[in-house]
Amino acid sequence: MIKVAKFGGSSLADAEHFRKVKAIITADPDRHYVVDSAPGKRYKEDTKVTDLLILAYSNRHDAKEFDKVFKKIENRFNEIIVDLELDFSLDEEFKKIREDFPKDPGIDYAVSRGEYLNGLLLAYYLGFDFIDPTEVIRIDAHGNYDSYRTDPLLRNALSSHEYVVIPGFYGYKNDHSHTIQAFSRGGSDVTGSIVAKCGHANLYENWTDVNGFLVTDPRIVDDPESIRIITYKELRELSYMGASVLHENSIFPVRSQGIPINIKNTNDPSDPGTLIVETTAHKPEHVITGIAGKKGFATITIEKDMMNAEIGFGRKVLQVFEEEGLSFEHMPSGIDTMTIVVDQNEFIKHEQSILAGLHRAVDPDHIELESDIGLIAVVGRGMKDGHGNAARIFKALADANINVKMIDQGSSELNIIIGVRNHYFNRAIKAIYDEFILREDE
Amino acid sequence: MIKVAKFGGSSLADAEHFRKVKAIITADPDRHYVVDSAPGKRYKEDTKVTDLLILAYSNRHDAKEFDKVFKKIENRFNEIIVDLELDFSLDEEFKKIREDFPKDPGIDYAVSRGEYLNGLLLAYYLGFDFIDPTEVIRIDAHGNYDSYRTDPLLRNALSSHEYVVIPGFYGYKNDHSHTIQAFSRGGSDVTGSIVAKCGHANLYENWTDVNGFLVTDPRIVDDPESIRIITYKELRELSYMGASVLHENSIFPVRSQGIPINIKNTNDPSDPGTLIVETTAHKPEHVITGIAGKKGFATITIEKDMMNAEIGFGRKVLQVFEEEGLSFEHMPSGIDTMTIVVDQNEFIKHEQSILAGLHRAVDPDHIELESDIGLIAVVGRGMKDGHGNAARIFKALADANINVKMIDQGSSELNIIIGVRNHYFNRAIKAIYDEFILREDE
Repeated sequence: MIKVAKFGGSSLADAEHFRKVKAIITADPDRHYVVDSAPGKRYKEDTKVTDLLILAYSNRHDAKEFDKVFKKIENRFNEIIVDLELDFSLDEEFKKIREDFPKDPGIDYAVSRGEYLNGLLLAYYLGFDFIDPTEVIRIDAHGNYDSYRTDPLLRNALSSHEYVVIPGFYGYKNDHSHTIQAFSRGGSDVTGSIVAKCGHANLYENWTDVNGFLVTDPRIVDDPESIRIITYKELRELSYMGASVLHENSIFPVRSQGIPINIKNTNDPSDPGTLIVETTAHKPEHVITGIAGKKGFATITIEKDMMNAEIGFGRKVLQVFEEEGLSFEHMPSGIDTMTIVVDQNEFIKHEQSILAGLHRAVDPDHIELESDIGLIAVVGRGMKDGHGNAARIFKALADANINVKMIDQGSSELNIIIGVRNHYFNRAIKAIYDEFILREDE
Repeated sequence: MIKVAKFGGSSLADAEHFRKVKAIITADPDRHYVVDSAPGKRYKEDTKVTDLLILAYSNRHDAKEFDKVFKKIENRFNEIIVDLELDFSLDEEFKKIREDFPKDPGIDYAVSRGEYLNGLLLAYYLGFDFIDPTEVIRIDAHGNYDSYRTDPLLRNALSSHEYVVIPGFYGYKNDHSHTIQAFSRGGSDVTGSIVAKCGHANLYENWTDVNGFLVTDPRIVDDPESIRIITYKELRELSYMGASVLHENSIFPVRSQGIPINIKNTNDPSDPGTLIVETTAHKPEHVITGIAGKKGFATITIEKDMMNAEIGFGRKVLQVFEEEGLSFEHMPSGIDTMTIVVDQNEFIKHEQSILAGLHRAVDPDHIELESDIGLIAVVGRGMKDGHGNAARIFKALADANINVKMIDQGSSELNIIIGVRNHYFNRAIKAIYDEFILREDE
């Protein structure tokens, strides 16, 4: 069995975390390939090494200021080396980077040095081989992974090393120019995902500082439970509605190979974390997998007698929004009424021309606007077979005295979308969390 | 106070009903204007006088057959006269009609004779004046009420009679040809409504053989309660979803004048029946006013990653349906999915070209079809302010083990639309009825 372990910046921020990472790696000989990030924040006000590198690069022609910033970077690494009592030095590397910066090697070169240096250090500390991603990873000018050029190089390199550290986030540009190019989005997560794919891994472990994805936003619900198993589809739905999760780019390479992703906590490695899978027969722990939401929507409700009999009515309405360049989120309808849910800030800019357009296009009897609507998505593969989930959601909201402005649930779906006034938003998420998570745990 | 009382065919089918009608009219001196229908069925297998007239007219050039049918018509009226022991005869009228029919006076003349004869009889029996609608009602060639020509004539005639019977259903064509023209839709109900308008009535009583409109279909729920007060808007919503109610044409003249309609039962005149109003501050007896529904819908669910970000996606989808001449009922959406609800029979004819059109228009990741879906509308002005109505609906459905396929509720609405499989349709309506009507009555 082969596992790829990618560690985030906070998991490699200091010597203490390096020790935790080593304990994790040595505990499981299946963890063959390690992808590192640059040292992250050690405390809330700390500065990430990557941000120090950006600052140093912007001062590259101001020797004094540059030296001041770069010393901070050197200190971050040297502290770790000293604290771990390693017979290892990055001084030669520092010297080369100090010389390179004033030669304008490009911002991607600059910011990637954090991953590079940390990778060298981690490889030494773990006793693993080191592969520089410039040898094996090719990225196009837009920052996208070039699988055609990368995969043979990376497969070949991985097959000749048993245990390897590869820095995340960068590679060479795919134009033979030997310039360093970073991923535009997803950073080290993408590298981990590509290594898992080309290393034919059975599992891609993504080590962070949380016990996986949370059922809902911890700013709304105190200490929410984490999700044990989530499908890619559920993940997309939650992320679309505002949950911050892995970037699409970092998921694609492993998803295409059917390799599960395990989000784990470096500070609590015994916690199972969240397993992201294509599909699963595992009965979910809870009927719902997650609750996410976004505030700031407006609704435009159009009333017109016999609108349903008017072929093209809905199309004409949507065309008005399209001509103003607005996309719509939902379009629930009743009898002779149709509600268009749109981003409020976008809508406000076009309000009067959309209203005029609607009058011209469909001659409505009445148009009603409502703003400050929050949309909440209740997502869960467990909802598919169960009866009574809608009842539980609406009972929980009713008991919390929350008026539901909009309900939308299509056929064959794993989610229900609910619209409430913005000021009910947090209370509504809490009520649903309590009903589906806390009550089920009782 | 002035009331218009329109009596349906079953309310004037025989002498027994004539006596009931007389008791109703004499009980309230406000009932100044009476609009009659032709005698209806006395028992299930009976033939309405109107249908006998159609039969007679189709045999108008076959003297023997015509005589056989026309005798039946005469007998219907003569039985009533004899039974009521009236010193009154329609023989002169019968003779004239017998002579007119072979001269091809038009089908509208023929079918309207039932209302005409019954009006003469009823006026005599009640001691009311009689106004022939040919003197006061003008109808265009499409069968629509010509208010411009009718209103001055009718207002004038009514102001010179205190108590009047006016036959429903017909008038003269509005072209000075003096030919008889019937209303294309709504029949005697339209006449009653026009008389109420031009007679400046305070109430339009529509006397039938039921205690007003029922909360739901009696073929689904045994002996459902009747609705006490319903707004025009609620009525429209229920009728759209399959409840059989007054035709739009018959409502318009009174609605435009703010005159309420009272649906009453000739066989149970003390029952308050259903009052139809423009708007009301009356707290409804129940949170919901009615439940109606239709079976036979199909759903087309389109999945595509990031569809919400694609401006014009919804418009393109609807355009495919529009180009095939199909109207859609609803369009609930989730995240990356959109469901189009359409009439199943209509859809089947266009299925393959719509699927091909969708693939061309929006290149979906996946399309799923589902058929045999029933839509249920739960309608009620009482739902607007109340919390927890959705909860009650979905709890009732869950307790009845009914899986909800689709939910649709827009902003500022008085109804929730629910989609269930056809075979759950009746059970779902029963469950909602029990929860909102029976349980509230307990």
